[in-house]
Amino acid sequence: MVSGYRNSKVLVTGGLGFIGSNLALRLASLGADVTVVDSCVTGCGANPWNLRSAAAHIGVIGADIADAAMFASEIRSSHVVFNVAGEISHVESMRQPSRDQDLNATAQLRFLEECARHNPGCRVVYASTRQIYGAPRYLPVDENHPIQPLDFNGIHKYAATAYHQVFTSSGALDAVVLCLTNVYGPRMALNLPSQGFLGWFLRKALLGEAIQVFGDGCQLRDPVYVDDVVDALLLAGAVRNLRSRLWNVGGSETLAISAVARMISSAAGAPPPVFTPFPKELKNIDIGSYYSDSSRIRAELGWLPRISFKRGVRLSLDFYRRELPHYLNGADYEPAALDDWSAARPQPLAV
Amino acid sequence: MVSGYRNSKVLVTGGLGFIGSNLALRLASLGADVTVVDSCVTGCGANPWNLRSAAAHIGVIGADIADAAMFASEIRSSHVVFNVAGEISHVESMRQPSRDQDLNATAQLRFLEECARHNPGCRVVYASTRQIYGAPRYLPVDENHPIQPLDFNGIHKYAATAYHQVFTSSGALDAVVLCLTNVYGPRMALNLPSQGFLGWFLRKALLGEAIQVFGDGCQLRDPVYVDDVVDALLLAGAVRNLRSRLWNVGGSETLAISAVARMISSAAGAPPPVFTPFPKELKNIDIGSYYSDSSRIRAELGWLPRISFKRGVRLSLDFYRRELPHYLNGADYEPAALDDWSAARPQPLAV
Repeated sequence: MVSGYRNSKVLVTGGLGFIGSNLALRLASLGADVTVVDSCVTGCGANPWNLRSAAAHIGVIGADIADAAMFASEIRSSHVVFNVAGEISHVESMRQPSRDQDLNATAQLRFLEECARHNPGCRVVYASTRQIYGAPRYLPVDENHPIQPLDFNGIHKYAATAYHQVFTSSGALDAVVLCLTNVYGPRMALNLPSQGFLGWFLRKALLGEAIQVFGDGCQLRDPVYVDDVVDALLLAGAVRNLRSRLWNVGGSETLAISAVARMISSAAGAPPPVFTPFPKELKNIDIGSYYSDSSRIRAELGWLPRISFKRGVRLSLDFYRRELPHYLNGADYEPAALDDWSAARPQPLAV
Repeated sequence: MVSGYRNSKVLVTGGLGFIGSNLALRLASLGADVTVVDSCVTGCGANPWNLRSAAAHIGVIGADIADAAMFASEIRSSHVVFNVAGEISHVESMRQPSRDQDLNATAQLRFLEECARHNPGCRVVYASTRQIYGAPRYLPVDENHPIQPLDFNGIHKYAATAYHQVFTSSGALDAVVLCLTNVYGPRMALNLPSQGFLGWFLRKALLGEAIQVFGDGCQLRDPVYVDDVVDALLLAGAVRNLRSRLWNVGGSETLAISAVARMISSAAGAPPPVFTPFPKELKNIDIGSYYSDSSRIRAELGWLPRISFKRGVRLSLDFYRRELPHYLNGADYEPAALDDWSAARPQPLAV
């Protein structure tokens, strides 16, 4: 299935970022003709170093997807568009709702309008997020879970998800959506709080510092290694006869955040994690556990996460040890702004 | 409860439009100090004639809610903000998604940011729509129905609904949301397809023409008279101790569209409705029946629709017969663009 990408022309939005660059590199290795587009907006994780190993084989367009008319010819000639661009920070979205709207909703709508105009019926694969489900009403979270985003980032990711669906139901595009859980691995920006707690844990461990865990760390998560996400994206772009068009993508195992911290510390040879009480302003905004039911994508696309968390952490640490200066420097870290425990995260509402 | 509006200062966005003007007039009659803001965007139903009967008592600001900084002092001094501004056309949203996004999502976010800045904790009452639920999975539709908007208008109304919820859960505002079914009554723009099929039926009957019904007209609707909606808005603005913050608002009875057409024709002395086959491009996009479960707002706010459909139609016809020139002229009608049967309406998606 995935071998079909050889010589096919693909466009990757957000292709200098974490997931986008891993995807672009894989596509190039499969023999695809890859163009990435990236606006390099501060905070979204773009890093030209990410594509260094295949710089000669991947075209890079510096543009905002909202200005897709600028690269209409690339849209027109693409067999598949992988739409991975976006801001993922919940916290930043609460601080600057309009910025998040611009990046995640307005730009997406403009982009899809141009795709429909220049390449009607094109397969578009959108990387959405578990954020659209909000605080789980039940676990594991499947695709029938109610839509109840709790922050502006979740609202706008849901809007973009629905844009893809409406462009498809009206016949303008042939879009599919993956709702990703916490993704980790090589090429995350370790200098940005917006990349989530896994990047922070990796950063601390790589610096030989103790990871700080708020509370008892008993909340569950299902981290997914970026190569597994790339597999899912490739399958979603390749399969023609679809039973559904939206799939949840979870990790290989469900772990307590405390175990995640211990495994990363141990693998890096860093001191063991330190458990500290939740800061008062954070204690009552813990959303509890989240993990995905990935059985639909397993049944329909044959996808399974292949990388255990232990192996994924080792692969990540190996990568960052070689490349650390390119991922560590930059914006200061603000632990209080970590997306899984932010003071800005609102409580679930009785609606 | 509603008597509490005497001498209170209220702001009504979209106050020159259909629902907004009926609300503003009622508030003025209750002794409130009313200011309306309206951008008079073409197609949204603003009509200065709507407030003619109380022109001396209602302040009017001509501004877009996206430019709320222009009327910050009015926001600052308001006890309650009734946020009724918006475009309601499903069809127009499919033709111009970005226009709908500007009017219903971007402008709402800008407006709420200004409300939070200038009047933190302010009660905001938002007029949302049944559109956020899409094609019903079950009937009647209650507040637990899945969110699954099927067009851009529904997506953006949902985004705005969620903005109100997130501003509230984060403590910035004290917002509540009503999800309205098909509203009818005096002061609808009968010259705009965007006002829905009830306005079209009234227009045809007032002109002495036969109402054209596509198919057998068996789909159910629960039209709600605008005075009943005004009651619900006033209660939602006045009640302090709330069990929930989102309520569905349906009509006094559930009727087949064929019965709606017959009752309007008969009351107006117009020829009986004509049933014609669904145009081919419309047949397969009929969303079927919709009616609301209003039991939550009944239980929590004590609201009940008081006006039967028969009485509401008579009141509407009486009004329009007196005022017809002010509501009939303007943009040409396009029956094919009627929102309940539009070719632009997408099919439900398997998600």
